[in-house]
Amino acid sequence: MSELAAPSYPIDDTNRVKRRHQRAHYDHATVHALLDSAALCHVSYVIDGQPYCTPTLYWREGTTLYWHGSSASRMLRNLSEGQPACLTVTHLDSLVLARSAFHHSADYRSVMAFGHARLIEDAAEKAGALTMMVDRLFPGRTAGLRPTTEQELKATSVVTMEIEKASAKIRAAGVIDDEEDYALPVYAERIPVRTVLDVPEPDGRLLPGVARPATLSGFSFGRRLDEVLTEAYAASYPMG
Amino acid sequence: MSELAAPSYPIDDTNRVKRRHQRAHYDHATVHALLDSAALCHVSYVIDGQPYCTPTLYWREGTTLYWHGSSASRMLRNLSEGQPACLTVTHLDSLVLARSAFHHSADYRSVMAFGHARLIEDAAEKAGALTMMVDRLFPGRTAGLRPTTEQELKATSVVTMEIEKASAKIRAAGVIDDEEDYALPVYAERIPVRTVLDVPEPDGRLLPGVARPATLSGFSFGRRLDEVLTEAYAASYPMG
Repeated sequence: MSELAAPSYPIDDTNRVKRRHQRAHYDHATVHALLDSAALCHVSYVIDGQPYCTPTLYWREGTTLYWHGSSASRMLRNLSEGQPACLTVTHLDSLVLARSAFHHSADYRSVMAFGHARLIEDAAEKAGALTMMVDRLFPGRTAGLRPTTEQELKATSVVTMEIEKASAKIRAAGVIDDEEDYALPVYAERIPVRTVLDVPEPDGRLLPGVARPATLSGFSFGRRLDEVLTEAYAASYPMG
Repeated sequence: MSELAAPSYPIDDTNRVKRRHQRAHYDHATVHALLDSAALCHVSYVIDGQPYCTPTLYWREGTTLYWHGSSASRMLRNLSEGQPACLTVTHLDSLVLARSAFHHSADYRSVMAFGHARLIEDAAEKAGALTMMVDRLFPGRTAGLRPTTEQELKATSVVTMEIEKASAKIRAAGVIDDEEDYALPVYAERIPVRTVLDVPEPDGRLLPGVARPATLSGFSFGRRLDEVLTEAYAASYPMG
């Protein structure tokens, strides 16, 4: 498949990046790689004209997104066609101090995905989703856990959304000043920002002899969360 | 002032935390401290029934929020009463591996703030906001920069919103399992997540003799971004 034929999300007025459009990407590879490198998203719904921006845990399966529902997602009940939603994932990669106020900026990688959100109401579909909610982060983990009870299943909401449109926006430029401003005696720098793992804390009530499974070895001190999650995703969804 | 009389945001159906309400806070002190510890937010608007969840840089002044507008914010032009919006800030503090799938979780600190967003159209108001957009992060920095030009002012959008309602939600609990599950031979742990500064990178085209200002000394390798931003906020807004 040539590069031009690489699968992409369709572009229209909803997802077209209008400002700094040279930072935009619509191809599945870029959008999916960003989605698979995080665990936290923000999702927007509208309830009675009021927008909500809710943080939650999510994951991707093909061109479908899943997330852990909040009480707000209950308004999705019985809406078989779903409700318009936007799920956004952002990595802040730096703060940029330029020589002018105008060019102060930040490096970042973000994805906005648009579609219609639907509450999963089928018990088998929900059980499958709850398994992947854990295994997507910690591959194979649920196989060693007791089954989820009926009551737990009822107490959890999972929302799903087919990605109809999406855009990724990436700034990885550091300091960019107007050419004439480089002559000014002003200090400028890029301050990189990293989200990393701290030292894992084993629970205080582990039974004797219960050791940390080898499958968690990627989750180690100092590693970047986006890299660890990308690896975990690849192990959970080896077909991509 | 007694604790009960501490200023709080009003609570109604929009901002009341319905799920896990014991994690909720509505007092100004908690909400503002979280808002002042971050630079990146996600803001939701509705345009023609479609919700957008847009990442951007923001800051607080009293009970007013400001953020860097995207092209989507242009729909706010000439809407003197503003448009309903929700601005959310989230820190992911850990991933939690429990003994059951159901109790897998994350520690986090988040704020959702609700109000009516308004595009700043007055030139003087916008110029003041653009100064604080920089100085809130890097106290006093704009005093050493060339003035912003008319053209730059026109090319930047700033949106403002009085916080009408807000809620903070904090989970800082680590592993919590059902009592009977502690008897299972299952490994459980909390994996702390931190967003930190990496080594600052001076721009490659600094003039000879231009040194890093002492005001940036807080922005040093390994420090937590939320702590650095909280300090910077306090220096920029000493009255809180």
